[in-house]
Amino acid sequence: MKKHHIYPTLKKHLEKGHIKSLLKFCDALHPADLAGAMEKVPVSETVRLFDKVGPRCASKVLSHMGSGDQANILPELSDADLSEIINEMSSDDRVDLIRIIPHERRQKLMQMLSRAEREDIIRLERHSEGTAGAIMTSEYIAFSEDITVREAMDIIRLEAADKETIYFTYVIDKEHRLFGSVTLRKLILAKTETKVRELMHLDPVRVRVEDDQEIAAGKMKKYDLLAIPVTDDDEILAGIITHDDIHDVIVEEATEDFHRFGAVIHEPPDLNLSMGQAGIWTMIRKRLPWLLILVFMNIFSGAGIAYFEDTIEAVVALVFFLPLLIGSGGNAGAQSATLMIRAIAVGDVKLKDWFGLLGKEVSVAIGIGMIMGLAVSLIGILRAGPEVAVVVAMTMILTVLFGSLVGMSLPFLLTRLKMDPASASAPLVTSIADIGGVLIYFSIATWYLRDIIAASGGV
Amino acid sequence: MKKHHIYPTLKKHLEKGHIKSLLKFCDALHPADLAGAMEKVPVSETVRLFDKVGPRCASKVLSHMGSGDQANILPELSDADLSEIINEMSSDDRVDLIRIIPHERRQKLMQMLSRAEREDIIRLERHSEGTAGAIMTSEYIAFSEDITVREAMDIIRLEAADKETIYFTYVIDKEHRLFGSVTLRKLILAKTETKVRELMHLDPVRVRVEDDQEIAAGKMKKYDLLAIPVTDDDEILAGIITHDDIHDVIVEEATEDFHRFGAVIHEPPDLNLSMGQAGIWTMIRKRLPWLLILVFMNIFSGAGIAYFEDTIEAVVALVFFLPLLIGSGGNAGAQSATLMIRAIAVGDVKLKDWFGLLGKEVSVAIGIGMIMGLAVSLIGILRAGPEVAVVVAMTMILTVLFGSLVGMSLPFLLTRLKMDPASASAPLVTSIADIGGVLIYFSIATWYLRDIIAASGGV
Repeated sequence: MKKHHIYPTLKKHLEKGHIKSLLKFCDALHPADLAGAMEKVPVSETVRLFDKVGPRCASKVLSHMGSGDQANILPELSDADLSEIINEMSSDDRVDLIRIIPHERRQKLMQMLSRAEREDIIRLERHSEGTAGAIMTSEYIAFSEDITVREAMDIIRLEAADKETIYFTYVIDKEHRLFGSVTLRKLILAKTETKVRELMHLDPVRVRVEDDQEIAAGKMKKYDLLAIPVTDDDEILAGIITHDDIHDVIVEEATEDFHRFGAVIHEPPDLNLSMGQAGIWTMIRKRLPWLLILVFMNIFSGAGIAYFEDTIEAVVALVFFLPLLIGSGGNAGAQSATLMIRAIAVGDVKLKDWFGLLGKEVSVAIGIGMIMGLAVSLIGILRAGPEVAVVVAMTMILTVLFGSLVGMSLPFLLTRLKMDPASASAPLVTSIADIGGVLIYFSIATWYLRDIIAASGGV
Repeated sequence: MKKHHIYPTLKKHLEKGHIKSLLKFCDALHPADLAGAMEKVPVSETVRLFDKVGPRCASKVLSHMGSGDQANILPELSDADLSEIINEMSSDDRVDLIRIIPHERRQKLMQMLSRAEREDIIRLERHSEGTAGAIMTSEYIAFSEDITVREAMDIIRLEAADKETIYFTYVIDKEHRLFGSVTLRKLILAKTETKVRELMHLDPVRVRVEDDQEIAAGKMKKYDLLAIPVTDDDEILAGIITHDDIHDVIVEEATEDFHRFGAVIHEPPDLNLSMGQAGIWTMIRKRLPWLLILVFMNIFSGAGIAYFEDTIEAVVALVFFLPLLIGSGGNAGAQSATLMIRAIAVGDVKLKDWFGLLGKEVSVAIGIGMIMGLAVSLIGILRAGPEVAVVVAMTMILTVLFGSLVGMSLPFLLTRLKMDPASASAPLVTSIADIGGVLIYFSIATWYLRDIIAASGGV
């Protein structure tokens, strides 16, 4: 079925009151497609549909919506309907939804949930945003090492309906401490009377509840895991993180790096409404702080220029090359920072590599600077004569070198200070390169053009 | 076991010739950890280890290494050893490895492989980099709809050892056309005499061999899939893509966007050696083209300045504020572009939203511009008197507005032209904002300060 046919078909069934066809139609669709169709329709229609398809289907559709769309729909659902939907949701999606419900309503809804669900939410909600605990689910399968494969398979069959995954099961002791894992693959290939103990992988890779979600994503990627167990301080199994949640983490981390690099303040995921929905004031708050900091940095460039006022008055043509030269230094710096931040993020480059890379960066930057200096000096000769051309060419080499070194060193320095290397944003690198560029340019000009400046009556 | 203990322990076993302990030790380790330990040791040691542990273990370790490390080790392995290792590798990892072997040696190795492996490589290698076909594996399980669950489970048990996943199986007709999928979960929960036909999901989500790998990643994320089938033009099942390969695609796409945004030429993954390994000339080639293009754009800024030479000569203090004003426009533009590129990448913003966002961006930019204008005009008064302060404040509002509009519109425009929105790199946006900033600044100054300029003998 073509995506854009979904909504018209739904509407037809709803209007004609063909509830049976409607349910059959929804059943055949993937909840993600239904959620996609709902994005384009008025909220009232979605509520009407939810009412017809029942809480189980509604819970799946709601789970597949973005938090912005969810936030629009929630106020329109009655407390009774919403609590039924929440009861049906999977443990981790439920907590994500609960987080965007205003405090008062949340209290009311919690009272309407069944006790097991309520306790599960409270347990999961304790963990702060961005930690492994916050994205884990409590719907996993665990058993003791003493049982046979046949018994394990019985448990899996019995519990499958409520669990996020049955492909990975965990082995725990009497105190619920994690000490093994076994895949369904192994269970299926083994003889039915084999003990789980003989099949299990001892001491499986795990993360702690308080670990950053990025650590969980990193381990899952490194070991090609579809699920990773999460334990608390006493090694007690608290939950598991499944592959679908990690997808979101990777995208979220990439977005975070991107935002930092673009000098935008990145907000935690649940406040991070889509651009279309964020208010004007939210946008200003995300953007203004860095802009103001950068303005004050740029004042140093201005001060540098003021210091060389005599040089400029004597050879006004120098100003012509100013944007070009400091721009090139900034651009080369932004490039270096880009390569370095990404290399650190994907684990290509470690702190200890800094010295080795420094030598190479110097060679690369001098190479680039010389080619660009040559190109620019041709313009320099045409526009302002050979003396200025020499100044421009020398400046180009040195500003590109300076910008590149700033761009490559700043992400390292930030990592050293336990900050995100992407905080070495393009605008920050550019601003620092600007200050250096101004000083380099006019210092060289003042020295190399000293006769011309003296002749024009300057110092 | 702590990671940094792996190598010393290995070395000890190797030196003492304790092959049995060595094999036991390696067996207990995850191949990813062994690969990690190998990164730090001389190539000759790795080759020695590969020799001892045998081709099966070596193939797993090699699969977990980056292409840079692989490229270092391959020349040191004999053709006989390497062909055995290749035989043992999984279908998709094998093709990735073959791609980095020089042509002549590749021909020789291909002759040494078993026929089935050779044909599999040739079939997979046909697909160009970046397509679904290039990352799929041919190691999947498929059967007909007529068999029972019991028969399906027998097939799964029989074929499990050679398959990437047994959790997802596919249903094909006599011509090998894909028409259904069934999860192991469903098979396990069903009665053994049930026909696969009754359990299967009809018409499963799929991608085509020639689709971009990003499309596969998008569908797997949207539908929470662990594996997605890949079909050719005749709907014939050609392979499947599993979650571990998609991890790499997501990271790769994020890196690509990041590199584009930083104005670095992004190279396809197999050339994309880690930073430590890329040669100086490779780095220059990745960085120089954009820098040169931007230099020529910056000449327009210079030309703008040249046009206003009289204004500058009359009020040299104006130059003091130049980096600050055009810097702020560029920074605001880089921020807008960042938010927009990322919102387009994660699907938050569609082409049709442009007009709606434009109105909001104008409000946000004017808000930011006014606050920054106010801050800067205070410095203006102190440094250059009230007239220049007014010019600076007005310019700040207009350049921030101009930069922001460029930053938000360029990614849309590029998407429209079927280009990657991230090609609206920070340096490109900054350079365009610079040109606008120079013209706005000196136009306002020339107009507002006309009396002062006239008095100083200008036009």
